[in-house]
Amino acid sequence: MIKRVQTKKIFVGDVAVGGDAPISTQSMTYSKTSNVEATVEQIRRLHFAGCDIVRCAVPDMESADALKEIKEQTSLPLIADIHFNHRLALKAAEVVDCIRINPGNISAKWKVQEIVKACQERNLPIRIGVNSGSLEKMFDDKYGPTAEAMVASAEYNIKYLEDLGFDDIKISLKASDVDRTVAAYRALRPKNNYPFHLGVTEAGTLFHATVKSAIGLGTLLLDGIGDTMRVSITGELEDEIKVARAILKDSGAVKDGLNIISCPTCGRIEADLVSAVAEIEERTAHITAPLNVSVMGCVVNAIGEAAHADVAIAYGKGKGLVMVKGEVVANLDEKELVDRFVFEVEKMAEESN
Amino acid sequence: MIKRVQTKKIFVGDVAVGGDAPISTQSMTYSKTSNVEATVEQIRRLHFAGCDIVRCAVPDMESADALKEIKEQTSLPLIADIHFNHRLALKAAEVVDCIRINPGNISAKWKVQEIVKACQERNLPIRIGVNSGSLEKMFDDKYGPTAEAMVASAEYNIKYLEDLGFDDIKISLKASDVDRTVAAYRALRPKNNYPFHLGVTEAGTLFHATVKSAIGLGTLLLDGIGDTMRVSITGELEDEIKVARAILKDSGAVKDGLNIISCPTCGRIEADLVSAVAEIEERTAHITAPLNVSVMGCVVNAIGEAAHADVAIAYGKGKGLVMVKGEVVANLDEKELVDRFVFEVEKMAEESN
Repeated sequence: MIKRVQTKKIFVGDVAVGGDAPISTQSMTYSKTSNVEATVEQIRRLHFAGCDIVRCAVPDMESADALKEIKEQTSLPLIADIHFNHRLALKAAEVVDCIRINPGNISAKWKVQEIVKACQERNLPIRIGVNSGSLEKMFDDKYGPTAEAMVASAEYNIKYLEDLGFDDIKISLKASDVDRTVAAYRALRPKNNYPFHLGVTEAGTLFHATVKSAIGLGTLLLDGIGDTMRVSITGELEDEIKVARAILKDSGAVKDGLNIISCPTCGRIEADLVSAVAEIEERTAHITAPLNVSVMGCVVNAIGEAAHADVAIAYGKGKGLVMVKGEVVANLDEKELVDRFVFEVEKMAEESN
Repeated sequence: MIKRVQTKKIFVGDVAVGGDAPISTQSMTYSKTSNVEATVEQIRRLHFAGCDIVRCAVPDMESADALKEIKEQTSLPLIADIHFNHRLALKAAEVVDCIRINPGNISAKWKVQEIVKACQERNLPIRIGVNSGSLEKMFDDKYGPTAEAMVASAEYNIKYLEDLGFDDIKISLKASDVDRTVAAYRALRPKNNYPFHLGVTEAGTLFHATVKSAIGLGTLLLDGIGDTMRVSITGELEDEIKVARAILKDSGAVKDGLNIISCPTCGRIEADLVSAVAEIEERTAHITAPLNVSVMGCVVNAIGEAAHADVAIAYGKGKGLVMVKGEVVANLDEKELVDRFVFEVEKMAEESN
């Protein structure tokens, strides 16, 4: 249903970003990058969680030096996150798959030229990462920390690279609040066709980061904006990927596994729906076929939802119906419904493979 | 920053909905409404959790009869949720503060006229509650279960009431997926000025319901759409209110308490930020003054965020700065930073009262 804005396709290692490539998920290690063992372990955890691209901070030369060994022990595409210091970028560019750097933060043009040359030699893209907390002074002075300032900063940094003959670019425009983030991405989107990396920055701990990121990234995904994304959480790595994937799925941007439609609690419910749905979630977690299923506690909306669901349960008093593609296939006691439902889901998932 | 669409103001009991009224939160009891004791207990829990308006299903006359006693024991405005049966609506209208009913689902016009007359006599508004799972057959047949069908159903039901001289109306357009929900509300918004009740229906268990509702309701709130809302969770009552309030706050639609900006984990962090932010969240949970605070783990974005924050911590190696309105007020050992930060937040909150 969502029509994605068509962007230029670039490659971060073997992961395509933009164009018709699937929207990828990213995260960032929080170990000292100079600690190879810890960083490799975190990258492995991210890989296992389903992360597509990983980023490491490179605040010093020990970290830049460590990247080679890290690359040798991991297979996820690696982005070096660099600020201010062009020598760190040159060192990182020898081994990583992408550099995140804002040219405007590098003190001299010749230094940026050296970085661009190093990236061109190895076909590395550059992410321009505009952040509301680290805007160039000239834009902060002129506009304050607004979406306009972020867009102006992005345009300035894009032009900086384009003037040097470099256009292997992706762009992020992260603010620490949702409406500025959304406003900035929306304003910049019509002005170029570079792929966008989405994120709400510094979104806080798990619960509020989930809500902020779902609002901000979800709003943009519904607009068709976004080619890769990170959910920033003051918390654990796996959660960033779990939430990112949920946003992709629940916005409708990606079809992946069961979309479970289930009632809220209300006084019409005839069954222990919470337990039933929890059991179904657990028993169908392995299924990747994109199926729409509904588990409904009373007749008011159940038949309507079931008619358009691949597999459905409609609970009645002590018993209920299992429906497949809108047709009733079984009328069973309440305690037999989940088993039959899971059976039908597994059958349909197998047939769709 | 968000400019709300101006809507007609109606009243559900003493709670204003629409116009310049604050966006209210709703939930629904899941006890049998005929069980007065259980329903009163659930309404009390919702009241304590911060819910503004509560809805009870009225599927039978025992439930309709119970509403009087429930009203006598609770103070939250009460909405009776009724389908198909006009006698239940007439009974409920004697005591509740609003009726949710779709006139198109009532079999005869004279029955709807009786409901309208009963509502007019007590100044009760009617919520037209369009739901993708229970569309009138004529619209489902014509459009399928689409946003267009939902909008057509809403317009039909609105006209039904308006033709009977009734315009004390609010409207919901809930689909079980985010993009239809958003599309339906956006399409209907320019066509009238009735207040909108937002919701993504049957959104599933806590995690996915949070993500789906944050995307759907957050997107609409950023558009300025929405006067009251419910987050539907297959789960517990308090969670519905907690998530609803988080969506209001994190979208920027409501200013309420601390907005905490804190870094994601990354290799630049010089401190145990996760513990510090968790401690700060706990120690400032009682504060209702709308303050922007930032807790940042390294210099890259910390100074920029702190410059625009009311109170901020910028961690360095083993120590850090506490900043108030962009000015450094203390340079302390790491272990003293949170105490000083909380002191400054409490001081500012008191001054703002």
